[in-house]
Amino acid sequence: MDNFVFQNTVKILFGKGQIANIAQEIPSDAKILITYGGGSIKANGVYDQVKQALAGRAVHEFGGIEPNPQLETLMRAVEMIRAEGINFLLAVGGGSVLDGTKFIAAAVDFEGDPWDILAKQAPVHSALPIGAIMTLPATGSEMNAFFVITKAATQEKLGGMCAFTYPQFSVLDPTTTFSLPDRQIGNGIVDAFTHTVEQYLTYPVNAPLQDRMAESILQTLIEEGPKTLAHPSDYDARANVVWCATMALNGLIGVGVPQDWSTHMVGHELTALYGLDHAQSLAVVLPSILSLKRDVKREKLLQYAARVWGVTQGSEEERIQAAIDKTRSFFESVGVPTHLSDYKVGEEAVSSVPQHMSDRGEVKLGEQGDIDLDAVGKVLALSL
Amino acid sequence: MDNFVFQNTVKILFGKGQIANIAQEIPSDAKILITYGGGSIKANGVYDQVKQALAGRAVHEFGGIEPNPQLETLMRAVEMIRAEGINFLLAVGGGSVLDGTKFIAAAVDFEGDPWDILAKQAPVHSALPIGAIMTLPATGSEMNAFFVITKAATQEKLGGMCAFTYPQFSVLDPTTTFSLPDRQIGNGIVDAFTHTVEQYLTYPVNAPLQDRMAESILQTLIEEGPKTLAHPSDYDARANVVWCATMALNGLIGVGVPQDWSTHMVGHELTALYGLDHAQSLAVVLPSILSLKRDVKREKLLQYAARVWGVTQGSEEERIQAAIDKTRSFFESVGVPTHLSDYKVGEEAVSSVPQHMSDRGEVKLGEQGDIDLDAVGKVLALSL
Repeated sequence: MDNFVFQNTVKILFGKGQIANIAQEIPSDAKILITYGGGSIKANGVYDQVKQALAGRAVHEFGGIEPNPQLETLMRAVEMIRAEGINFLLAVGGGSVLDGTKFIAAAVDFEGDPWDILAKQAPVHSALPIGAIMTLPATGSEMNAFFVITKAATQEKLGGMCAFTYPQFSVLDPTTTFSLPDRQIGNGIVDAFTHTVEQYLTYPVNAPLQDRMAESILQTLIEEGPKTLAHPSDYDARANVVWCATMALNGLIGVGVPQDWSTHMVGHELTALYGLDHAQSLAVVLPSILSLKRDVKREKLLQYAARVWGVTQGSEEERIQAAIDKTRSFFESVGVPTHLSDYKVGEEAVSSVPQHMSDRGEVKLGEQGDIDLDAVGKVLALSL
Repeated sequence: MDNFVFQNTVKILFGKGQIANIAQEIPSDAKILITYGGGSIKANGVYDQVKQALAGRAVHEFGGIEPNPQLETLMRAVEMIRAEGINFLLAVGGGSVLDGTKFIAAAVDFEGDPWDILAKQAPVHSALPIGAIMTLPATGSEMNAFFVITKAATQEKLGGMCAFTYPQFSVLDPTTTFSLPDRQIGNGIVDAFTHTVEQYLTYPVNAPLQDRMAESILQTLIEEGPKTLAHPSDYDARANVVWCATMALNGLIGVGVPQDWSTHMVGHELTALYGLDHAQSLAVVLPSILSLKRDVKREKLLQYAARVWGVTQGSEEERIQAAIDKTRSFFESVGVPTHLSDYKVGEEAVSSVPQHMSDRGEVKLGEQGDIDLDAVGKVLALSL
């Protein structure tokens, strides 16, 4: 096991009715900005629950944060916060709203161009406190400090984090997700699955507890994912998927082990260039990464085949191929196609994605740092 | 899944050499009290590492905290803290030192008799900040707010917790545990195993991720425990046991599920009355609790048999019995006997333990609240 430092301070309020408890988590004299997306929270009753919980409090609102939240949109919220003296942010929505709100929190007091927080990984020295009501099980953003932001002007989608962008609290009420369309639930399952794989399918460092915890999340997603798609209002099935999504990216399964993240790096480019949903981009890239890197990932792929998919028969090569095929089939089964052609993206991606990545400097992705621009092209060729 | 609130703010510094990094975790103007036990930290080099890391800092020392730390001892530290104006506690040792230090931290500013924090669960409104260097993998005290204290005068051993007794940071350097005697490592394995079982072997509430994470800890302890006893200086095996012990009681596997804790409640009495090591008392009680409550725990016992021990053949009753027998054998295999007679405790315990418990009021233990004094007597009769 490698050395590590782990800390995650987020307070999770999980279960039906927990929105009613948020008032006690926010200082009584706070000037609150509620941030949200396209307005689905007004249709599904979440907005009303929030307003009721915060009755009598000083509350402003900023809506319209889009999927793959854009710098240009978020900076308008920053201006509003500065003008109004707002000092607490309450993100209500999915990962995009929460990611966008983290960026807003860090940008408010940032000196210089806030895009540098992402483009130059410029240090952040403070951020506004954040609370979250997460209404989409997927990104894990409710229990980490990461945020991924898109700059529309340059078609760049970049990730960042800092010590100050952990939410102080996050509410996870599975009932708030019942009205989500199948596409978003399927996406969320693929997202959580891929987050787990990025921290698991690398090379062994003798960390069996981390391995088994990762396998626990994967097995539970495989078991509960189809259930929750078939029965969206089955509380337990949905609650289990919600909790898997949180556990997949709160840092715990990744302590002391190597991490990959190449699928995300390549996937972000597909979203930026071709508009694929985040999870769609992961579903396209992951099977190809596993296929291309099957030699350096051999030991963990065999473990994954046996423990997650129950594949123990056949040659090593056959077992590895079966595990990759089953991964692809699982993504397809939850409604997320796994080929670029499914999204009307053609061979041009094989050159356009590496070209776009090369604009930002040297590319050495993966746990071995051995996925260069040439390898990215090969991954995309495998994904057509 | 049941509703839950989860937060654990402890910063973990895990791995070889991490003691060198503690200075940056403690305010530079702090007046520090190093608390420790019988002095093994001076023999194994940990004390020297701590002093070196804190060179130039204002440091006091309080040694002599005993296993099953005693109120009477700890109150002497409280007096010293008040006299010297100490404002940061650094616990260096095992669970007893850390538990004792948490109590000290809560007692310093407590108005009234600090024993009430345990005996009457009196509310605590503040505590001194605590850092920890945990040198014994067992109690999980390094990543939770619990403390168990013994009052020698009345032979009472009671547990408590409050929001302020989470360590701010905990160092887990597996190499600091290499010199521990086999008995303490065996005890630690049993302790971590039982902590996990207390949160797992109850009744199903459709929380498969929590179940699998608990099973992950149990499987890893079964796999790595014997390895670390056979090869105490095998870094990875020891590191895996250390991390299992932390994960077993940091709250995560217990979210949203029923919890038992009857084994601990009865075990504490055996320690208080007969001086068994904490883990010895658990090894004696747990198999008997599982045996007595096999009907209400049936579904989870069958799952435990299959997933943790690979027992899938035979009738339900045979599988349950096999799982209980394998649990007992595992404890014995790591050097912790499982019968009262092994500790020279006889039939008198069958009446003395319930009698001692009854002095503190009504007894309704276990996840169903159905283990009364009569049942406690039956458990002890099964443990002779």
